[in-house]
Amino acid sequence: MQGLEKQKLTLDERIIVFLQYPIHELNTTMHNIPNDPTLNVSLPEGQPILRVVPMPSDTNYAGDIFGGWIMSQVDMAGSIPAIRRARGRVATVAVNSFVFKQPVFVGDIVSLYADIIKVGHTSITVDVSVYAQRGVREGGNEVCIKVTEAVLTYVAIDNNRRPKVVPQE
Amino acid sequence: MQGLEKQKLTLDERIIVFLQYPIHELNTTMHNIPNDPTLNVSLPEGQPILRVVPMPSDTNYAGDIFGGWIMSQVDMAGSIPAIRRARGRVATVAVNSFVFKQPVFVGDIVSLYADIIKVGHTSITVDVSVYAQRGVREGGNEVCIKVTEAVLTYVAIDNNRRPKVVPQE
Amino acid sequence: MQGLEKQKLTLDERIIVFLQYPIHELNTTMHNIPNDPTLNVSLPEGQPILRVVPMPSDTNYAGDIFGGWIMSQVDMAGSIPAIRRARGRVATVAVNSFVFKQPVFVGDIVSLYADIIKVGHTSITVDVSVYAQRGVREGGNEVCIKVTEAVLTYVAIDNNRRPKVVPQE
Amino acid sequence: MQGLEKQKLTLDERIIVFLQYPIHELNTTMHNIPNDPTLNVSLPEGQPILRVVPMPSDTNYAGDIFGGWIMSQVDMAGSIPAIRRARGRVATVAVNSFVFKQPVFVGDIVSLYADIIKVGHTSITVDVSVYAQRGVREGGNEVCIKVTEAVLTYVAIDNNRRPKVVPQE
Amino acid sequence: MQGLEKQKLTLDERIIVFLQYPIHELNTTMHNIPNDPTLNVSLPEGQPILRVVPMPSDTNYAGDIFGGWIMSQVDMAGSIPAIRRARGRVATVAVNSFVFKQPVFVGDIVSLYADIIKVGHTSITVDVSVYAQRGVREGGNEVCIKVTEAVLTYVAIDNNRRPKVVPQE
Amino acid sequence: MQGLEKQKLTLDERIIVFLQYPIHELNTTMHNIPNDPTLNVSLPEGQPILRVVPMPSDTNYAGDIFGGWIMSQVDMAGSIPAIRRARGRVATVAVNSFVFKQPVFVGDIVSLYADIIKVGHTSITVDVSVYAQRGVREGGNEVCIKVTEAVLTYVAIDNNRRPKVVPQE
Repeated sequence: MQGLEKQKLTLDERIIVFLQYPIHELNTTMHNIPNDPTLNVSLPEGQPILRVVPMPSDTNYAGDIFGGWIMSQVDMAGSIPAIRRARGRVATVAVNSFVFKQPVFVGDIVSLYADIIKVGHTSITVDVSVYAQRGVREGGNEVCIKVTEAVLTYVAIDNNRRPKVVPQE
Repeated sequence: MQGLEKQKLTLDERIIVFLQYPIHELNTTMHNIPNDPTLNVSLPEGQPILRVVPMPSDTNYAGDIFGGWIMSQVDMAGSIPAIRRARGRVATVAVNSFVFKQPVFVGDIVSLYADIIKVGHTSITVDVSVYAQRGVREGGNEVCIKVTEAVLTYVAIDNNRRPKVVPQE
Repeated sequence: MQGLEKQKLTLDERIIVFLQYPIHELNTTMHNIPNDPTLNVSLPEGQPILRVVPMPSDTNYAGDIFGGWIMSQVDMAGSIPAIRRARGRVATVAVNSFVFKQPVFVGDIVSLYADIIKVGHTSITVDVSVYAQRGVREGGNEVCIKVTEAVLTYVAIDNNRRPKVVPQE
Repeated sequence: MQGLEKQKLTLDERIIVFLQYPIHELNTTMHNIPNDPTLNVSLPEGQPILRVVPMPSDTNYAGDIFGGWIMSQVDMAGSIPAIRRARGRVATVAVNSFVFKQPVFVGDIVSLYADIIKVGHTSITVDVSVYAQRGVREGGNEVCIKVTEAVLTYVAIDNNRRPKVVPQE
Repeated sequence: MQGLEKQKLTLDERIIVFLQYPIHELNTTMHNIPNDPTLNVSLPEGQPILRVVPMPSDTNYAGDIFGGWIMSQVDMAGSIPAIRRARGRVATVAVNSFVFKQPVFVGDIVSLYADIIKVGHTSITVDVSVYAQRGVREGGNEVCIKVTEAVLTYVAIDNNRRPKVVPQE
Repeated sequence: MQGLEKQKLTLDERIIVFLQYPIHELNTTMHNIPNDPTLNVSLPEGQPILRVVPMPSDTNYAGDIFGGWIMSQVDMAGSIPAIRRARGRVATVAVNSFVFKQPVFVGDIVSLYADIIKVGHTSITVDVSVYAQRGVREGGNEVCIKVTEAVLTYVAIDNNRRPKVVPQE
């Protein structure tokens, strides 16, 4: 239930978390291996829902990977367990929380993990965690960093886009 | 402060809001003029921050406009008043709330409005409202519908992507 | 009728206009605030038809925003008042004039204004003006520059793509 | 000098040209072989400057290929002989005329031909003709149709984006 | 070594393999659950190198996912173990074999697995297998199908794009 | 039959071919005119099947044009003579060989030539050669380099995507 607890952080606390991990130089994108060893984590066990590599066409005007690109990937990743649980189509109803912990760079291997944390009458709430692996292409060791954590709610819909009841498991 | 009040809606309340506006037929995308007159609103006064028309390449596997596409536009729209207030670059730190009230379709004229609702030491929180105008291309009257409301937090950053203090106004 | 008058400029006169505003350094894209105060104008009063931010994926081989990207946006902007006037679909028939006055850069806030200047039996001619706001992201003052002016003609079409008469207002 | 003569057509004449070739059914995109034999022309002799196949991601909200997509291709095609003549970079200054004679569809083989029609002190004016081949994929005979004709002016620029003199041939 | 053995199939044998699995109706894209139970396989054990969902903008003129889109994903997937083995950048030198066994559709969950099968002085050869999961979104059971198998060779390169020796493990 | 002979090169021989043409500096992308005169070839006689200019959005994380982009273009180029020979739709069955001889850069004029080298009962095998012209935009002489050679097999299909017999010529 880590995702729900994170929602309880105040805005100030989130900024503090953000500040304690200084973001790396823009001009050294290809070599931005964080030297804070506490940032290097292991990937979660089990299978990623999605695993993708952002490309130069996904960057914003400053050369970083767009917040919006990450939101798109998280939205799609969260929808997959929701579709499997609903046994049919779903629509995104709400983003309950979404914390950008670290920036993502072109060429990162980005793995998204998604777990259902609540099933309502017609809704399914999913926690999505996003990790980036980087560094080996630049000749260093591969490090793995948690970059984003989000909680989204989907609603099960029928072919006419009307909400429908989530079936019993 | 409408955006902050909306955050107080529980998940159940959000689903109720969602359910009371039945979503329209997928197969009539080009003619989906809602017949519930309470949905038709006026655009806010003043200038939109962004105004865009989603294209077929922005659709998902079901032919709708992607949730992720809308998130991208909202992220960019919210960043513009934050950049003006910070007098420099910003990075997205968190999505505090994001409610998809109605679907968006290919060819809609989508207007995004953004207002700063809180300024912290290094952070700026922005409320973004999204409206879609549609119907006239299909030969009907143009209707305007509120499709999304979101609150995002940005942090002012310097050229090395380190958080910096938001200047006094 | 400013748009029609502009068509009367000869090619030589256009080049002269172009030459008197030296284009800014390619390598200082992010800081290209023109120091010629006569370039800084106010946005037109009233609502923009479209307002968009070009991204790195819209650049050409030289790192500028594509002429073709601007043409796409102008084509779409001009079609919107034409659709509203025709009360239905339109197709682009001709670009009557299109002058690139100043380059557009990644990250500019690009506002497009469109006014119908002539309505024929089945055709609608639209003047489109394009402005770019820039400079505040780089820590300077925001300036506003007119970047493009164009006149396009659309034809009202029915569902079988056959021209149809523009209705009386 | 065919391109310059075409500029002398009035708007009314252009609409007449447009009307005399009825546009084909939207719903039969894959089978829209025009049955007017006068539309079927031969490709020009010599080499195309560009030859491309538009894809579904290039369509607009109505399922046609975007006017803006065609403008982008024409802009790029016209720039190639201008670059060769200028022996260096060029920027688009103006679109002098641009007539959409027939729609373009997904899967067409689109060939662009470009000829320099005027060289000024710093400017180069190019006539671009666009042809579409289609029909064989649907099991019919391949037909070739002229879809667009345009005249654009480019200016030779140096590395600082300042206009420079076009060299003698 | 399954990938290398497949290279020994003659062209005729490949066509026979292709013919024995009839391709499904184009017009039933969203419901094309193959009814041949021998097609339904398990995903390989272990981690996918990439896992992606193709979108409508990745389709070709016929509404299928492009062969070229799949090739792009396979190229990227194969490069990742090559980069890890080379401890630095690689360039694609050759596609040794590439067999499209089944079509891929919009909305499929596409998993790519990659194994190094040969390491030369400067080259690394990788076998890439691609599987698609589909069916649950349409309300059926999820099936998994092997869609593509390929063998590619990469060369380790230094920062000047010159081939370099693959380090000892 | 040049394409089939090339398939007989061993992997080692391919690497040797690759090594004897050193790849040019990444940081001089815009000026990478090879000074080895043996690289400069003439374009083949006759018409290109496709002729395109890759854009910044086609680059990979290292700033080069993606191998996958080239594969996409080759797949589409090869399909065109196959469609004409089959008098209808085709699907890609296999890539028999694909050799990247030289890198492609943003702004290159890329010409693809395709010749049918074998027609089977339902299959058509096509040799695709790819050339890049570059250098004149940077103020130098235009050079032409062979960048890729590939052999692909397509199968003729009917509207239900079932293989069908290639008609007699």
